[in-house]
Amino acid sequence: MPSESVTEVRVRYAETDQMGRAHHGAYVTWFELGRTEMMRRSGISYAEMERRGVLLPVVRLEVDYVSAVSYEDLLEIHTTLEEVRSRRVRFAYRVVAADGGRTAAEGATVLVCMSPDGRPRRLPDDVRSALAELTASDGATPSEGG
Amino acid sequence: MPSESVTEVRVRYAETDQMGRAHHGAYVTWFELGRTEMMRRSGISYAEMERRGVLLPVVRLEVDYVSAVSYEDLLEIHTTLEEVRSRRVRFAYRVVAADGGRTAAEGATVLVCMSPDGRPRRLPDDVRSALAELTASDGATPSEGG
Amino acid sequence: MPSESVTEVRVRYAETDQMGRAHHGAYVTWFELGRTEMMRRSGISYAEMERRGVLLPVVRLEVDYVSAVSYEDLLEIHTTLEEVRSRRVRFAYRVVAADGGRTAAEGATVLVCMSPDGRPRRLPDDVRSALAELTASDGATPSEGG
Amino acid sequence: MPSESVTEVRVRYAETDQMGRAHHGAYVTWFELGRTEMMRRSGISYAEMERRGVLLPVVRLEVDYVSAVSYEDLLEIHTTLEEVRSRRVRFAYRVVAADGGRTAAEGATVLVCMSPDGRPRRLPDDVRSALAELTASDGATPSEGG
Repeated sequence: MPSESVTEVRVRYAETDQMGRAHHGAYVTWFELGRTEMMRRSGISYAEMERRGVLLPVVRLEVDYVSAVSYEDLLEIHTTLEEVRSRRVRFAYRVVAADGGRTAAEGATVLVCMSPDGRPRRLPDDVRSALAELTASDGATPSEGG
Repeated sequence: MPSESVTEVRVRYAETDQMGRAHHGAYVTWFELGRTEMMRRSGISYAEMERRGVLLPVVRLEVDYVSAVSYEDLLEIHTTLEEVRSRRVRFAYRVVAADGGRTAAEGATVLVCMSPDGRPRRLPDDVRSALAELTASDGATPSEGG
Repeated sequence: MPSESVTEVRVRYAETDQMGRAHHGAYVTWFELGRTEMMRRSGISYAEMERRGVLLPVVRLEVDYVSAVSYEDLLEIHTTLEEVRSRRVRFAYRVVAADGGRTAAEGATVLVCMSPDGRPRRLPDDVRSALAELTASDGATPSEGG
Repeated sequence: MPSESVTEVRVRYAETDQMGRAHHGAYVTWFELGRTEMMRRSGISYAEMERRGVLLPVVRLEVDYVSAVSYEDLLEIHTTLEEVRSRRVRFAYRVVAADGGRTAAEGATVLVCMSPDGRPRRLPDDVRSALAELTASDGATPSEGG
């Protein structure tokens, strides 16, 4: 099973809408927080990658909204890196209420590797290796892992 | 074929990110613009619906990003209402560059009908009828329509 | 009297908050729309300026919120360029309801001219001239203008 | 001297713009984070206040941008409650880089107390008392405090 990274985020007032809940667009930003923090913890600074000319734009986004969340709710973004290929990666997310563990949303993003001039390129070897470790088993019994 | 509503929007500076293009989250707002303007043109004010206790939260979102768009680009959001059921509707979107017609993104949202207390409810008959007209053929040969 | 540029904008659902009105942060984006559209109409594309290495970051922002605006309200952003100096410009804004002319907010921003490396620089002559025209009288009696 | 509340926030990718720095609008949200967290720590839940019919819209905003901040920068929002009156409060903010203490921005907001119907009202006594404590001295010599 791929390792999971958990990022806490509290719903901001500016993220609510007049339905009195977090706007559905806020989750896109939370997914982004989840994956960039997962990468940072693995020693991959996205800011540093960009300085090296490696961009990772999102090419596919999916969100299933399960239950609403409100202003001041503390959330956990559970992020897993589902797949790493030479030019694309896929992250999956689960947003849960920190208090109780109710699932608020699930989703995924696919990102491709690109040069600053907009052309597709391969992930640098060191980045790919670091990412590959995130998809590996993190448990004590890897033989049972995915 | 369902009728299509076209809404123009210009990429705002605040919508760009440091990759020098519109952030992928901006499209969620543009989709929302597309469907609310489509509804407004059909005589359905979303603001008025909410005052009547009819909420339409998004429960599913999908976006495929095809080509990047930049600050000041003028875009057209082509919105179609793909399906109307008693408690849910599905809209599809195509974002195209107004200058040349290049496709920037495609996507869809599913919305469900809900009471202010968060319980599912049926779409009011007048709203459902008005929406149903948007899914009907708008061409000269309605017998071939969907 | 300096000439005024009027930009229409409709309050987006994503810009509302749970008070049921536009969030106070949305006005910052509307001011930006007002000044960039004013510049575009004067033949100054902000996108083009940036490609020439001329950045105009905001260094001062003031907003007085007078009356709330709601989802779907159509607004006019009345923008005037109050002052043009060699390295800084000051814009003033008035946000009014298109229906009735009620004032929703007033404010101002000061922007400075900067190189991409973050150093202050002078406005290019052609930009400064074009901006200077925006501060001149637009009335029938230019001799009385500022 | 009034007590100060410090809130950490990391610059999100979605908050950057094509100048490669945090957009000036992001600071408005950070100020909001600062003051709502300050209130929460003092036992005043803004969410709870709203359920009691006490709204606190912003009527005045000022920001001075001192130095740019970038994606992934860790910031501290230093918030102080400068003044509490029967119907209005004024907060001041200083945004500093967590690494080194460089000042990124300073600003202030004035908020007024309002009923859900939009009419001005007095702050409830318990809220006003709790807020008043935040403006009192937090030092060892309270007799010299404000």
